[in-house]
Amino acid sequence: MAQPYVNDEQRMARAVQLARLGMFTTHPNPRVGCVIEKDGHIIGEGFHAKAGEGHAEVQALASVQGDTTGATAYVTLEPCSHHGRTPPCAEALVKAGITKVVYGMEDPNPEVAGRGLQILKKAGIEVVGPVLENECRGLNPGFIKRMEEGLPFVRVKLAMSVDGRTAMESGESQWITGPQARGDVQKLRAQSAAIVTGIGSVIADNPSMTVRIDNQGNEVDAKTVRQPLRVVMDTALSIAPEAKILYPTNEVAIFCDEEEVEADHLKALQKKGVDVRFVPLGEDGRLDLVEAMGQLADEGINEVLVETGAELAGAFLNAGLVDELVIYMAPKLLGSAARPLLSLPLEHMSEAVELDLQEMTKIGSDIKFVYVPQYRDDEAE
Amino acid sequence: MAQPYVNDEQRMARAVQLARLGMFTTHPNPRVGCVIEKDGHIIGEGFHAKAGEGHAEVQALASVQGDTTGATAYVTLEPCSHHGRTPPCAEALVKAGITKVVYGMEDPNPEVAGRGLQILKKAGIEVVGPVLENECRGLNPGFIKRMEEGLPFVRVKLAMSVDGRTAMESGESQWITGPQARGDVQKLRAQSAAIVTGIGSVIADNPSMTVRIDNQGNEVDAKTVRQPLRVVMDTALSIAPEAKILYPTNEVAIFCDEEEVEADHLKALQKKGVDVRFVPLGEDGRLDLVEAMGQLADEGINEVLVETGAELAGAFLNAGLVDELVIYMAPKLLGSAARPLLSLPLEHMSEAVELDLQEMTKIGSDIKFVYVPQYRDDEAE
Repeated sequence: MAQPYVNDEQRMARAVQLARLGMFTTHPNPRVGCVIEKDGHIIGEGFHAKAGEGHAEVQALASVQGDTTGATAYVTLEPCSHHGRTPPCAEALVKAGITKVVYGMEDPNPEVAGRGLQILKKAGIEVVGPVLENECRGLNPGFIKRMEEGLPFVRVKLAMSVDGRTAMESGESQWITGPQARGDVQKLRAQSAAIVTGIGSVIADNPSMTVRIDNQGNEVDAKTVRQPLRVVMDTALSIAPEAKILYPTNEVAIFCDEEEVEADHLKALQKKGVDVRFVPLGEDGRLDLVEAMGQLADEGINEVLVETGAELAGAFLNAGLVDELVIYMAPKLLGSAARPLLSLPLEHMSEAVELDLQEMTKIGSDIKFVYVPQYRDDEAE
Repeated sequence: MAQPYVNDEQRMARAVQLARLGMFTTHPNPRVGCVIEKDGHIIGEGFHAKAGEGHAEVQALASVQGDTTGATAYVTLEPCSHHGRTPPCAEALVKAGITKVVYGMEDPNPEVAGRGLQILKKAGIEVVGPVLENECRGLNPGFIKRMEEGLPFVRVKLAMSVDGRTAMESGESQWITGPQARGDVQKLRAQSAAIVTGIGSVIADNPSMTVRIDNQGNEVDAKTVRQPLRVVMDTALSIAPEAKILYPTNEVAIFCDEEEVEADHLKALQKKGVDVRFVPLGEDGRLDLVEAMGQLADEGINEVLVETGAELAGAFLNAGLVDELVIYMAPKLLGSAARPLLSLPLEHMSEAVELDLQEMTKIGSDIKFVYVPQYRDDEAE
């Protein structure tokens, strides 16, 4: 394969920018952007907006005024080779007379990786890549993890005081952080395919956990935008039928232990249209979170946002499922009687969970941290 | 008074820079820098290095090659008006033929504030200021607080995990943070006139709490540099005579409750040369920290660094004595069984201590935060 030119990175950076326009809407598909260049000028741009609508390459080709013969296509993800809801993009590029394709990353699905590139090469197209691979991978952490590991990318969002507390002992907690941090959480929700919480949080706070921003980040009525699947981990199925999170009911799933469920309550919920699912209990006597997340991945859920209390958040961490901890730290001390950040009873320093800092940003008067737990690497070693 | 020129700020910034050269050594005196300018050029510079040695103005005048008549002096602090170990700087400036003095801040001692400026004005010198007052005040938080309130400036240093824990439940704790953060703590110690710890920390860790860097920040033998006064809060005077912190014994003070002291132990410590002091107990049954800090201020202690466990650190906060929390956050989770950052049992959200973020810096793989508790403002309102 030929080496990329410096110019290739600039064009790919633009394609990444385009891909981000689908940040809130492409699930279960990946976010993909595409730029068509001819004679040194961009003649077309496109991105994938929504499942069922055109892929980025098709959108970009369609945007061109004039002839695409001899043009170069920059695309953040290897063009697809399969006939799905739309014809394969690799074929569309061949048909359009494209003579060079620069790609950002190969298809993360090990069963099809490289096939799209093969189609291009067989047609005599020059193929260059991967270019800006990290940036391109960063567009789709969930899609990649689902393809590679059969699990969604799990973000755990936590709001804490400087002394690592989330609520007073009594439970008094709402709005530790400021409005800007809460606005940022809206973006995390909007880019997630599912939001997971625990029955404890549902009972304590009765949250709706809706997305209330549009693609441009403007505040809108929750009814006007796509809502992620709301997921409640509720071992004994004790959720009240009037809990806010159950509405609208066609966007909710509840995981519970079949043996602990009361038949009448189950029936009542199912009659309302709530999707109740059974998962076995794990060794710790809790719902098996790996099994539950695997089910979500099987349904095409790429990114999961966990917004819950210390118990369930700690269980996700213990299960090795956490890809990112997103922590908002408010400038206050809640004191030593207050509730801990995570229920994670460790005895020795050697058990401490090492974290890798990815991001540190001041948001209003709070600070946002993104940390990656290092246990996943350790296990892989 | 005349308005400052833009140029005045540049010169004052240089004087602030010079003052910082005395950061580790001027106690109990303030850090002061001085620049002498003539015909648009700097002709002399000086700073106060050490009590007993020349003040900044005198050092700067002495550095001039040639005539100082008609020159301008920039000095971070109002020139002194009193005859101390050295003659008054205000008079020295008059004598040198200086025709304009730009000062950074007035003398914080309410009893002498303005007198130095008066001497200058009476001599016909043009006086301009305050210029860069915040920066100049920032040089001497301890000296200023001692003059204004009769208390030292108290910094509490804490090292914690992301989940706000300082040690495992068992006490296992050493070196949560990395070498760069520990190096930064050396600077905090070096600029402090006293380091305060509690008997709990002494028993658990047997620390020496020495400064091991020189003025340039290079690692050196503790014996070759000035050591802050080490102070142990030890209610029942239970410190072991062989505790490392007692050496060298002429640089240690122990606060205890006279009624709880065992006479033989007291005698043994005093015979070794340890300075044992009695303070009454406060309402909370602990040593009265305000009284103890007041005693230190009376002796000329400007800045105090508190390096201790959750109990004593929490008590300092509760006593309203903390001017700055310096927190080093290591990228790890110690878990919910681990020890809290501060012993501070609050019940309601309304009691939460609000903090004001002053600084956020990545140091090695740790993050350093400087927070100012807002309770001091609240009390003043």
